[in-house]
Amino acid sequence: MPAQWEEIALRKRQERGAKIPKEWELGPEIQPMPEDVTGIPRSCGILTEKELDITENYDARSIVDAVVGGRWTAEEIAVAFCKRAAIAQQLVNCLTEIFFDQAIERARYLDRYLQEHGKPVGPLHGLPISLKDSFSLPGLASTVGLTSRSFTLAQEHSVLSSMLHSAGAVLYVKTTTPQAQLALDTHSALWGRTCNPHNTALSAGGSSGGEAALIAMRGSVLGVGSDMAGSIRIPASCCGIYGVKPTTRRVPRQGTETVEIPGTHYAGLATVVGPIAGSLGDCRWFFEVVQSLEPWRYDAQVLPYSPLPPAGKQRLNIGILINNGITAPLPPVASMLNEVRRALATAGHSVELVSLKEFSKAFAIATGFMTLNGNRQLWDSMAAIEEPWSPWLAARMKRRDAKPTALDDYYKLLHSKQQVETAFLKGLWERGEDKPRLDVIICPTSGHPTTKHDEGGTMDWVVPWNLVDYPAGVMPVRTVSEADLEMELSEPSLGRWDDGCRKLWKKETRRSFVGAPMAVQVVGRKGGDGELCNTMEIIDDALRHGKGSVTTSSTSKL
Amino acid sequence: MPAQWEEIALRKRQERGAKIPKEWELGPEIQPMPEDVTGIPRSCGILTEKELDITENYDARSIVDAVVGGRWTAEEIAVAFCKRAAIAQQLVNCLTEIFFDQAIERARYLDRYLQEHGKPVGPLHGLPISLKDSFSLPGLASTVGLTSRSFTLAQEHSVLSSMLHSAGAVLYVKTTTPQAQLALDTHSALWGRTCNPHNTALSAGGSSGGEAALIAMRGSVLGVGSDMAGSIRIPASCCGIYGVKPTTRRVPRQGTETVEIPGTHYAGLATVVGPIAGSLGDCRWFFEVVQSLEPWRYDAQVLPYSPLPPAGKQRLNIGILINNGITAPLPPVASMLNEVRRALATAGHSVELVSLKEFSKAFAIATGFMTLNGNRQLWDSMAAIEEPWSPWLAARMKRRDAKPTALDDYYKLLHSKQQVETAFLKGLWERGEDKPRLDVIICPTSGHPTTKHDEGGTMDWVVPWNLVDYPAGVMPVRTVSEADLEMELSEPSLGRWDDGCRKLWKKETRRSFVGAPMAVQVVGRKGGDGELCNTMEIIDDALRHGKGSVTTSSTSKL
Repeated sequence: MPAQWEEIALRKRQERGAKIPKEWELGPEIQPMPEDVTGIPRSCGILTEKELDITENYDARSIVDAVVGGRWTAEEIAVAFCKRAAIAQQLVNCLTEIFFDQAIERARYLDRYLQEHGKPVGPLHGLPISLKDSFSLPGLASTVGLTSRSFTLAQEHSVLSSMLHSAGAVLYVKTTTPQAQLALDTHSALWGRTCNPHNTALSAGGSSGGEAALIAMRGSVLGVGSDMAGSIRIPASCCGIYGVKPTTRRVPRQGTETVEIPGTHYAGLATVVGPIAGSLGDCRWFFEVVQSLEPWRYDAQVLPYSPLPPAGKQRLNIGILINNGITAPLPPVASMLNEVRRALATAGHSVELVSLKEFSKAFAIATGFMTLNGNRQLWDSMAAIEEPWSPWLAARMKRRDAKPTALDDYYKLLHSKQQVETAFLKGLWERGEDKPRLDVIICPTSGHPTTKHDEGGTMDWVVPWNLVDYPAGVMPVRTVSEADLEMELSEPSLGRWDDGCRKLWKKETRRSFVGAPMAVQVVGRKGGDGELCNTMEIIDDALRHGKGSVTTSSTSKL
Repeated sequence: MPAQWEEIALRKRQERGAKIPKEWELGPEIQPMPEDVTGIPRSCGILTEKELDITENYDARSIVDAVVGGRWTAEEIAVAFCKRAAIAQQLVNCLTEIFFDQAIERARYLDRYLQEHGKPVGPLHGLPISLKDSFSLPGLASTVGLTSRSFTLAQEHSVLSSMLHSAGAVLYVKTTTPQAQLALDTHSALWGRTCNPHNTALSAGGSSGGEAALIAMRGSVLGVGSDMAGSIRIPASCCGIYGVKPTTRRVPRQGTETVEIPGTHYAGLATVVGPIAGSLGDCRWFFEVVQSLEPWRYDAQVLPYSPLPPAGKQRLNIGILINNGITAPLPPVASMLNEVRRALATAGHSVELVSLKEFSKAFAIATGFMTLNGNRQLWDSMAAIEEPWSPWLAARMKRRDAKPTALDDYYKLLHSKQQVETAFLKGLWERGEDKPRLDVIICPTSGHPTTKHDEGGTMDWVVPWNLVDYPAGVMPVRTVSEADLEMELSEPSLGRWDDGCRKLWKKETRRSFVGAPMAVQVVGRKGGDGELCNTMEIIDDALRHGKGSVTTSSTSKL
């Protein structure tokens, strides 16, 4: 007899499967499946030439321009992306809730509206936007990878989805997360595994893994994920696309599902909502559009301020952080960072190595906040239906006794956090008159390249930036090459976390990294979300088109 | 044998007394002391005519203009305000740390700088600014009313005092607070009682009571206080001047002393630092100057954003909140609010009564945050030197057992707070398309007018605005008249807090209110600190000079 969770999950998956029209189902001719499935939407014959053009060659902003300008209809756009998302789902298992019918109906409404009124309903008129499963949409579940939530349907829109919808976006799918959104790899008992489109043997990252995989498949050009400990940046890195975690309290997150105890959101590490996209321009535009919609009118936690005026600098002062005191980058990551450093210097930017001894303290404090509760309610709800942990989580989750943390210990964490915030401010940005003022920090997203399923994932390079609430984005650089395999780690281990990372570089197994995506993380000053996108575009340009370009033709598709 | 605290306090007060030059000491000719001491600086003969003009007839901004324009020297200004502050101290006991010598020396330096460089050191060049005792200044104590801290000298400037100093301000005094800054009336075993300059039998309010009393004496034109539960607004109301509590994380508060457990600052009710001044223009200017100094570069808790552009409206939509469900305004306060309502309507503004059922919930949550710790460390430190509680606190402080609050209970408070924030947003500002969009809310600062010492003080009209983090300022309206005494309360009591307030309106004792200052509180939207000052100026103008003016000649000095 199947366990209780299995029956529920089966029903939920069948329901999802039924939402894909028969004519959009892939035939047996794509077998054997290649490792890299990004080309299948083009080769499978389901999309027309026009639909391939629409989904492959435009960013979000130009899609809106094309609809508003009358070049394409919103309906054409919606159908193209629904088709491509359906194919992506069949290849990498990236969707949870599918509602193509409503999306196409909405698109038709938008077309009529434009015709009748001669103007768009808002700045997102006709743009398909995909959402991480955590966003509540009326009549749909937000399982966040938990079987027990399969048929709990939301009554209301999340604040952000409501705003995007009103501004003309066409919502059409929600995307997979790991169980309870707690992993850096996207797998759950309920939905199974989400794969990396560039190599289905590799991790798509997590927790916004479905979102990143869908966008890498061009089944969406702009999606929204969330990030409390790398959950936008890790999957965007793994899937070779762009993602930006903004400063908290700028983009509404009210109405998104989590397993947190209510009230804990802004009490330590805050989950923040942000864009995952095929281009940095779309990430920046996302922030501009959200700001223009006055989000503080709808979510009391959003702050009603304007960003500071953009600096407009073209020649940047860049700090590179290579040693975080926790895990040393494996040789391919270290090489890639050195190449980035040289390319940026060649392009005329000023680049210096920086260090920050409080980085490891920030990591320890962030870990402290994440383990305060012991997720007691989550353990209980899973046990009730005999749901097993995903492999990634099974290796990490420890059932904590129900001994409650003392409030005074929590206060100590808060105090340490404030001290670290001061140390970061002084150590990175306000270093005194005698040192150049940095515009941005570059560092790895992880000590290792994208791994096979369940193998990756310390959050030591990402979560400290959540703790101090700095905006941080990721951009693809290159994949691991054969030449990278020749290099060895020279320095002694930094400790427990580093040991875990070094295990991935064993001589016998390191070959599995060849072709795996690598990205860099770019970190800005608190509140400078749009400014960070500007700066990232300059850096991206230097890496891709500059004299010292480090990207090669084999990786440009990333 | 005196208790240990008495010896320490005596020494500390003697030290303070020695800082006032002999020639600035008041002679016996001012006896018998009038109730209203605001005229004594003019009558006592210590200030020259020019010094009386400087201290009585200009706001902060015009003082800076006069120094930078060469009309007065910074030294003249400094001497004038030091003299007047010394007199204020002798009349109302409003100072803690006095450092006239350094101030005058600093002013001379500023004069030389201006002569040599032909430009001011910064936007505050030559302006004397007084600070609440809580701001750390190198070499001085920050007792915050606690005897045990009398000789604990700070090593460093607070962030804000350092910024003000660098921008050209002349710091010269720190001002009294109640014991541990925990009362709405300014008295401590260490410093004794601070009196209300308009009537020394009345409370100066608290906890920024010394600051408000000094400014009402014109011993300062612009000072800085702090407010976690009314501590700027209550004393400014009592003393008939202006004070604005801004939104949190805009004005640096790092380096201010409190009795809070480190780390708790931003974990519920945050103390916020703001201006107390003789004019609203100076309050607004204070925010502009602080913003221009880029405070986020010096305090990691300050947010690097710009305020939204000012609305520039002259005809306002004003909501008046008269019933908060906790205490009903006593008849003089209710009458005054009705007069304000009529005056604003006569001046052409749209005025409507509003209500908000979650107001009392907000009060309960705020009280919850304030009593979480039980101030255990404070009790212990006072017991160690046998220091007694002030009367106001003795009636309210209850020794809590050392049973620690559970973290889950704290999370419940945080969650309730977020729900209340949403309720306030929807109930006051985003009420739907069919209702006019309010620019500002007007309400009392307290259910009662300024009371005699130790008699006043529920915080139910002020602390809910701290909880939801809205900027709120106060402005004087009028004093209690003989006619006000005729009115009775008609509605039944709202409960325990209301009972306490009603006791003040007993027939036998209510006469003591005649002549007592009353103020209104004006509340703006989160983040709109400068905008609130603009709006308050429009309202102030309507009350003072409009057709429906409610101020009379007898109260215009307020």
